[in-house]
Amino acid sequence: MKAEINRRQLVTLLTGVAGVGAAATLVAHADQLGGGKDPAEALQKVPWPYRPLDPDKAAQRGFEGYYKAECMYGVFDAIVGPVAEQLGSPYKDFPFLMFKYGGGGIKGWGTICGALNGAAAAVQLLSPEPDQLVNALFTWYEHEQLPDIHPKGAKFADVRSVAGSPLCHQSIAHWTKASGKLAYSPERAERCGSLVASVAKQTVLLLNQQAAGKPIIFALPKATQSCMSCHEKGGALENMRTKMDCGGCHAPLMDKHPAKS
Amino acid sequence: MKAEINRRQLVTLLTGVAGVGAAATLVAHADQLGGGKDPAEALQKVPWPYRPLDPDKAAQRGFEGYYKAECMYGVFDAIVGPVAEQLGSPYKDFPFLMFKYGGGGIKGWGTICGALNGAAAAVQLLSPEPDQLVNALFTWYEHEQLPDIHPKGAKFADVRSVAGSPLCHQSIAHWTKASGKLAYSPERAERCGSLVASVAKQTVLLLNQQAAGKPIIFALPKATQSCMSCHEKGGALENMRTKMDCGGCHAPLMDKHPAKS
Repeated sequence: MKAEINRRQLVTLLTGVAGVGAAATLVAHADQLGGGKDPAEALQKVPWPYRPLDPDKAAQRGFEGYYKAECMYGVFDAIVGPVAEQLGSPYKDFPFLMFKYGGGGIKGWGTICGALNGAAAAVQLLSPEPDQLVNALFTWYEHEQLPDIHPKGAKFADVRSVAGSPLCHQSIAHWTKASGKLAYSPERAERCGSLVASVAKQTVLLLNQQAAGKPIIFALPKATQSCMSCHEKGGALENMRTKMDCGGCHAPLMDKHPAKS
Repeated sequence: MKAEINRRQLVTLLTGVAGVGAAATLVAHADQLGGGKDPAEALQKVPWPYRPLDPDKAAQRGFEGYYKAECMYGVFDAIVGPVAEQLGSPYKDFPFLMFKYGGGGIKGWGTICGALNGAAAAVQLLSPEPDQLVNALFTWYEHEQLPDIHPKGAKFADVRSVAGSPLCHQSIAHWTKASGKLAYSPERAERCGSLVASVAKQTVLLLNQQAAGKPIIFALPKATQSCMSCHEKGGALENMRTKMDCGGCHAPLMDKHPAKS
């Protein structure tokens, strides 16, 4: 036969064993434990509940996070960090530092900009409809003059440039041309920190917009749509899967490109 | 004055309240709760402890995971999933499905191959020295004839190709050329599932090698090193941050490239 004690008796007992704070935590776990349910299981369910954020605070946290563990971590922590802190345990125990891997387009490989990689991860974790939001964010990143924020603590003069691509090495190459600075200079490092701030802010604006029930609208450039009409789904060639601005990399090919039939 | 009960009395009490399994979980949490310590905190610490895996099992799990939530999820779940299951709660409660975002080079954008994005995330989470491991994996991916695995359940004839890049759209373009199939065909979808299997297996082989104390060796191709000698750190231009095979995308530029001084 099962011993029966009520919730209050359990709290009293556990307070004696483990102290007030720990008892509250244990009882919260016990409340979830109906059929042996794991208290950390809430983590698993994607998306997590989103809590609208202050875009400017996210920008500043992103800049500071960049100097802790690079660009992908900076954006992810700036967005998911404050949400997790509001939600409490177990959300706040997510291994944020795993996103250090995205630095420099993944370990310096120059592929996807780490700020965008971190933003896309955050959006998937927090949005019930992530696809359009990521499309809008990536299109914005390709064509805006960035970074468009001068965070507190930034030391150098701002130089903006248009990446023309969601890829890291191209974003950096365009900025070195605009600034006359080197790719491994402290100015370039700070520029990527400010870019993290810009991307964190824009992502939060889009998440807030979606959370308020407003539609997310985006359009790919006409030139990219023209390329896609042959190379993408349903086109005569259908040999590609992409939404990137083709001209950003492939402009030099264009003089050898066959006429469109 | 604090009530004193011992661990055995606590187990007995909680078993009555919550059942045997739940009591064990609660007591495990209580054991961790010394000063109100959060039981999920173990999650935060990166890297998680690695447990050597069976590379062939990881390959098959990757293929099956691909059909659940695409390529990035497939590789990440194939590697981190079984480690988390061995470690138990709270590790197994990680929100694996967040990595759906990497499908098709991030939401169909054709940037970083999702299999590589998932592998790099897994490596950062599980390896004490992730950098060389990711370098070795990405170099392998660029230059191997892949996929080199025919998973159980695969229906179509295998067609291998060399991606020449860590980017999704290029990897797909080279495969469509080799196979004569379309980018949105079921054959291409299965090929990406098999590629997930190949990348999961190779990543596990490298993680196991590192866990056994054997060095991870890799070398970038000489042509890429030659490009980097001007464009990368310390070069005359230093306008770039990349380790990608430059010729994979920029070969058409080469007839306009100035002579090396």
